Amino acid sequence: MRGAVLYGPGDVRYDERPEPAIVEKTDAIIRMSVTCICGSDLWPYRGLNPSNGPAPMGHEYCGIVEEVGRSVSSIKPGQFVIGSFAASDNTCAHCRAGYQSSCAHREWVTGAQAPLLRVPMADGTLVATAEVPAADLVPDFLAVSDVLGTGWFAADAANVKPGSTVVVVGDGAVGLLGVLSAKQMGAERIIAMSRHASRQKLAREFGATDIVTERGDDGVERVKELTGGVGADSVLECVGTYEAMMQSIRSTRPGGSISYVGVPHGVELDGAELFYTHVHLHGGPAPVRRYLPKLIQLVQNGSINPAKVFDLELPLEQVAEGYRAMDERRAIKTLLRA
Amino acid sequence: MRGAVLYGPGDVRYDERPEPAIVEKTDAIIRMSVTCICGSDLWPYRGLNPSNGPAPMGHEYCGIVEEVGRSVSSIKPGQFVIGSFAASDNTCAHCRAGYQSSCAHREWVTGAQAPLLRVPMADGTLVATAEVPAADLVPDFLAVSDVLGTGWFAADAANVKPGSTVVVVGDGAVGLLGVLSAKQMGAERIIAMSRHASRQKLAREFGATDIVTERGDDGVERVKELTGGVGADSVLECVGTYEAMMQSIRSTRPGGSISYVGVPHGVELDGAELFYTHVHLHGGPAPVRRYLPKLIQLVQNGSINPAKVFDLELPLEQVAEGYRAMDERRAIKTLLRA
Repeated sequence: MRGAVLYGPGDVRYDERPEPAIVEKTDAIIRMSVTCICGSDLWPYRGLNPSNGPAPMGHEYCGIVEEVGRSVSSIKPGQFVIGSFAASDNTCAHCRAGYQSSCAHREWVTGAQAPLLRVPMADGTLVATAEVPAADLVPDFLAVSDVLGTGWFAADAANVKPGSTVVVVGDGAVGLLGVLSAKQMGAERIIAMSRHASRQKLAREFGATDIVTERGDDGVERVKELTGGVGADSVLECVGTYEAMMQSIRSTRPGGSISYVGVPHGVELDGAELFYTHVHLHGGPAPVRRYLPKLIQLVQNGSINPAKVFDLELPLEQVAEGYRAMDERRAIKTLLRA
Repeated sequence: MRGAVLYGPGDVRYDERPEPAIVEKTDAIIRMSVTCICGSDLWPYRGLNPSNGPAPMGHEYCGIVEEVGRSVSSIKPGQFVIGSFAASDNTCAHCRAGYQSSCAHREWVTGAQAPLLRVPMADGTLVATAEVPAADLVPDFLAVSDVLGTGWFAADAANVKPGSTVVVVGDGAVGLLGVLSAKQMGAERIIAMSRHASRQKLAREFGATDIVTERGDDGVERVKELTGGVGADSVLECVGTYEAMMQSIRSTRPGGSISYVGVPHGVELDGAELFYTHVHLHGGPAPVRRYLPKLIQLVQNGSINPAKVFDLELPLEQVAEGYRAMDERRAIKTLLRA
């Protein structure tokens, strides 16, 4: 089997890899319907994460169950399933509290940019749809697996409520779906920070009421102007840099909430500064599993169309071009077909 | 008039000061019934805050209104009133959201360790009791002004709910009243971190179910043992140091909440580390004004007895000894009588 492997900065190849097989009796093997490239894949692609040699890439997936281990009981071959990047038993105390991405037995799923994938703890990790969906809905279900699940967590963790004033920092796919999520949660005003015409357009389609093109302190100033000097109730930090975090903190009203859903890179927070801002801060790897049933339903009944973030579609063997297009910001998000 | 003045590290004197007078038409002058020394007064006393020359000290107060400015309407001479260290208009957007200590017109009250005090924005800052209270309740009302209000905010900001498992880091007066507050909010289990017999005893009186004497990673380990490996739902960080903050973060379950209510000194948080802990973080200067009506009622009806934290009582002129006793941890908190 061939699959995407990162050999070093900028060097992704569609290369020969061992075909995945059942290892634990709780595993499932799924045949990929579609997969995609994540913003977080760009960190190692850009050499910004430490590398431990060649790495199979990809952690967003949906597909048909090919085989299950002998103790898997709720997931069956032939089902169309969706899972998250964090495999979880969905029974431990952390899972029961809704934080499956901190499951006591968590395993990070990787190697999904390939035709076949091994998913650990299949019963806890995967959710099956009622039937195999129509082809045109499959990209929407793929989006649920990570990018929408993460945008949804961003809105939830930032405490978005009906009537909220929301700021979304970051116009990548997660930020854009953070806009969609805030809209679904009843936000009255959604300010998207973006300076790219195509992303601004999609933000508006997803529910943004205002676009702010300024960044840093100028961006903060503009948000303050738009909110009568008060600041936003909820700010979704969907970038992961120090600049984005500080812009988020300074855009939030005292008592408001900030979520952060991308692994912070170079973010150091000064306790005393944070103290006087009076903000709530919550984030982490999105517990997508918590939201899967709800998001699957929203896709199924046509309420949302998150696949709009896929603005480039390539066959899996052209995965390298998919990374390049996202790295150069020519594409918001690349869908890969097996 | 004489009052407490800090001249430099370790040098508090009961010294001649100008008598306060109405400056703004929204001011009130109150005659102190009792006042006290705050844990936060020890930061400048120990030379750990920058100094700008001699500083009148004290910000916890209750007393009888002596005089009001001509635009004060709800507060009247002769009333017994309680206020907070943060004077607030109680009408701006931040106040209406319950964050009066981030009021758009906030002024820090200081100079309360004296017989008379000027309080700005009297209508927004002060709350009057129905009648002048009996003498034995006055220390309890004084506690409401800051130390209980701050402990209450700590429990509220850490999202303590009926049935919660709570850890309180710090056995100073705020931490001890954080225990009392958590108990009032229905916490099922309250683990107090303390290695001082007298403070452990008071923690138990206020509702602690467990005492942990270990600190740092050993303390975290002990909390994990006591919570079946899960961690606490809510952790109240009532110290303000890096060590206390890290101990708090590591004692919290994923998805749990940490509050921090003392100005952080030397606290730097690593974004990536915080990310993977999945905690909620919220704190800041306690918006005591939000809680004053509720806390006054709890004192009035005898439900709580927060004045137990005052284990040393001195006349105002012996204020220097009051600071020394707290600095050397001979006293939890010093009450000062005018």
